[in-house]
Amino acid sequence: MSPKPMARPGGRSARVQASVHAAVRELEAEQGRAALTVPLVAARAGVTPSTIYRRWGDLQELLSDVAVERLRPDTEPADHGGLRADLTAWAEQFLDEMSSTAGRAYIRDALLGDPDGGNAGQCSAYAAAQVDLVLDRARERGENGAGGAPARDAVMDHVVAPIMYRILFRPEGLSAAYARELVERTLDGLPD
Amino acid sequence: MSPKPMARPGGRSARVQASVHAAVRELEAEQGRAALTVPLVAARAGVTPSTIYRRWGDLQELLSDVAVERLRPDTEPADHGGLRADLTAWAEQFLDEMSSTAGRAYIRDALLGDPDGGNAGQCSAYAAAQVDLVLDRARERGENGAGGAPARDAVMDHVVAPIMYRILFRPEGLSAAYARELVERTLDGLPD
Repeated sequence: MSPKPMARPGGRSARVQASVHAAVRELEAEQGRAALTVPLVAARAGVTPSTIYRRWGDLQELLSDVAVERLRPDTEPADHGGLRADLTAWAEQFLDEMSSTAGRAYIRDALLGDPDGGNAGQCSAYAAAQVDLVLDRARERGENGAGGAPARDAVMDHVVAPIMYRILFRPEGLSAAYARELVERTLDGLPD
Repeated sequence: MSPKPMARPGGRSARVQASVHAAVRELEAEQGRAALTVPLVAARAGVTPSTIYRRWGDLQELLSDVAVERLRPDTEPADHGGLRADLTAWAEQFLDEMSSTAGRAYIRDALLGDPDGGNAGQCSAYAAAQVDLVLDRARERGENGAGGAPARDAVMDHVVAPIMYRILFRPEGLSAAYARELVERTLDGLPD
């Protein structure tokens, strides 16, 4: 099969990655996650199983890489004209996507098969980059006076972290109202 | 080998669980985590491999159960005479234990091999029970006036969750000072 087009075209290595990732996505959609094996993925991608073992170690590491790719945000946070509205809309969407059946499976896959923590770090970096966009926009609007905009780490610790903790450890109470409440608390708790 | 004594003695089922858990702990200490296999654990525990497969499904589920047992707190939070001191000391200890090499491995094991989320829920329940003890003690001291003691969920969301998120997704900045800062913020952010 022909490799999928890449955002950043590379050599053979990038083509192998693209075709193997595509094979995982296709086979998972067709046959379900439990049916995936390295030989099956290799056959679909047109590579040898040893190419996959050499590059990814095992199936779990490959699935972790694919999951992180799927957790990459594909749009910028929407601009609603103000920090509170932007952050609330982003948090609601983040909760919605991450707590979906697919989102939970990707988070789990990303955390497993990730011996050096690089993929988990990448998930966090994606969220941080989105939060930075929202905060930068607020600063550009002049919403950065005393108590105006929180630090990015405050948003990560008090909006992103509670959502991810509930998804992983106590999957109840995950509503849009909960996301809004976390944003309110983070913005209202700013030092004056 | 003889089964280990149980806190709540049971029948054959409890004895099997105790001896299999003990076998995992012993073999892990002797030979390392990577050497563990179901037949090896079964031989050490004096049961058949099929007993383990029947009860736990696979090695990952067994390791998840053992990890949760190890994450069970073995002491009550220390009493330092006041809510702020108690919560700060507990948060520092929680961060210290969970971010240790052993703690990270147990959290990871507990999350994997946990198809129904019961083990992850149990980890969270252990932390919540410790937080409840600290908050109950504050109420008994009369520290429950307006703005006196936070709700348990506020502590879970804004002290426990940020620590666990950093451990799993961005393992930097995990110091006792960070734990103290989260407690300060949670207590100071209380509505008056």
